[in-house]
Amino acid sequence: MFYIVGLGLGGVKDITVRGLEIVRNAERVYLESYTSILPEDKLKLETFYEKPLIEADREMVEQSADEILDSAHEKDVVLLVVGDPFGATTHADILLRARDLNINTKVVHNASILNAIGCCGLQLYHFGETVSIPFWTDIWRPSSFLNKINQNKAIGLHTLCLLDIQVKEPTWESITKKKKEYQPSRFMEVKEACSQLLQIINKGEFEEVNYVSRECLCVGAARVGWPDQKIVVATLAEMADVDLGPPLHSMVIVGKLHPIEEQFLKQFFINKT
Amino acid sequence: MFYIVGLGLGGVKDITVRGLEIVRNAERVYLESYTSILPEDKLKLETFYEKPLIEADREMVEQSADEILDSAHEKDVVLLVVGDPFGATTHADILLRARDLNINTKVVHNASILNAIGCCGLQLYHFGETVSIPFWTDIWRPSSFLNKINQNKAIGLHTLCLLDIQVKEPTWESITKKKKEYQPSRFMEVKEACSQLLQIINKGEFEEVNYVSRECLCVGAARVGWPDQKIVVATLAEMADVDLGPPLHSMVIVGKLHPIEEQFLKQFFINKT
Repeated sequence: MFYIVGLGLGGVKDITVRGLEIVRNAERVYLESYTSILPEDKLKLETFYEKPLIEADREMVEQSADEILDSAHEKDVVLLVVGDPFGATTHADILLRARDLNINTKVVHNASILNAIGCCGLQLYHFGETVSIPFWTDIWRPSSFLNKINQNKAIGLHTLCLLDIQVKEPTWESITKKKKEYQPSRFMEVKEACSQLLQIINKGEFEEVNYVSRECLCVGAARVGWPDQKIVVATLAEMADVDLGPPLHSMVIVGKLHPIEEQFLKQFFINKT
Repeated sequence: MFYIVGLGLGGVKDITVRGLEIVRNAERVYLESYTSILPEDKLKLETFYEKPLIEADREMVEQSADEILDSAHEKDVVLLVVGDPFGATTHADILLRARDLNINTKVVHNASILNAIGCCGLQLYHFGETVSIPFWTDIWRPSSFLNKINQNKAIGLHTLCLLDIQVKEPTWESITKKKKEYQPSRFMEVKEACSQLLQIINKGEFEEVNYVSRECLCVGAARVGWPDQKIVVATLAEMADVDLGPPLHSMVIVGKLHPIEEQFLKQFFINKT
């Protein structure tokens, strides 16, 4: 059997009881190490699971799926992923590959930022399409995510913005070489995302109507589900100066507020006056 | 401390390890019994938790929050909810009430249908606003959810449709009386939701452009995360005749399909020819 088990928001005890049983009984356990987990967590997880974990980076999951799936016909093999197993297309890929090889598969669900963001008090039913905000480079500065935020805002919906995570990304120079060299890991902060958004707005070149202004209300959420979770509500312009601390960060561009949402958000306002 | 702990998709072992520890150490544990849990599960949960559970119906959570929160200043009180704690506004209400009473609160997240629906292979980032489809009565036949589905479909997004759950609903006759009488529990099936949608379409009275036809692709998902989970992909017209078995059911009206989504969905097609 091939299992994909969700780790939830990333604390060692965020795995479900069923997930833990599966991990402890498995022959081999892989830990997906590129979508969001922090490197220092591997040892904590191994200690708690009483099980060695094999790190599976992006290249391995995408290009060596058969190595992970090896012997899963007879034995139990587990791939651990942060959040819920269906947060990334890669996991659909490996499940399809397992099916092609006639390997039975099971998925153990868990919380992901897509539902846990509800902790800020915004109703999950009032969110539109989720967007991803990528790190800009000198020559690549996409702004298409603003169109989706506008599409949501036009009909009063909130937008969850997932902020870029770069773990084990090859350097530009080594991308075509056999021996890859890797950039240091980077996690986009809410203030960086806000700064990029402000630059797009200041430029003022919009394909369609723009509803996102400097005064637009945003929720910055850091380390959701962790003991030091931090949530701040501020305008876009204010948020560009807010330091929310260590990763992971996410952001919501707020749409139309319902009374109960407004009441809940109040506790997080940066300026409570 | 007042905790709201998510039970995930409802199997006893779907609670997280951290959630289980909190439950086992708590002074009192309430089980929210009206948004989706099935009555026969209470005993199973009590046996696994080694803890008695106090049933909290809608009236209790909405009107007697202070009874639940009693003594939570000094002792640990837990409210268990199916899915993730922020799936329903009621839970935001009771957290706000606790804050007003200066009681510390913590939330333990878990999977909910809002992210677990990814198991059908549709990418969670391609979903628009979620809709709820209510049971119709003889005199109340709302169709406004179709507008939202159309709004999503117009820009290529999928729509998760949450189907009505009626647990411990007072009868019309007893609604103003002191002694309430309750209707039997009802859980809307995918085929009933499809039949309501087909009636709206057949009537042909649309406020705006309608993109939902009899041939429109739908995903029916029953008992997501359970051992007997069932997923079927069919047209809306076909789905109105599909029996997906016991509750809970959810449905997705499919938007624009990406190649990997299409490939994943194929395994669930009702007509594989």
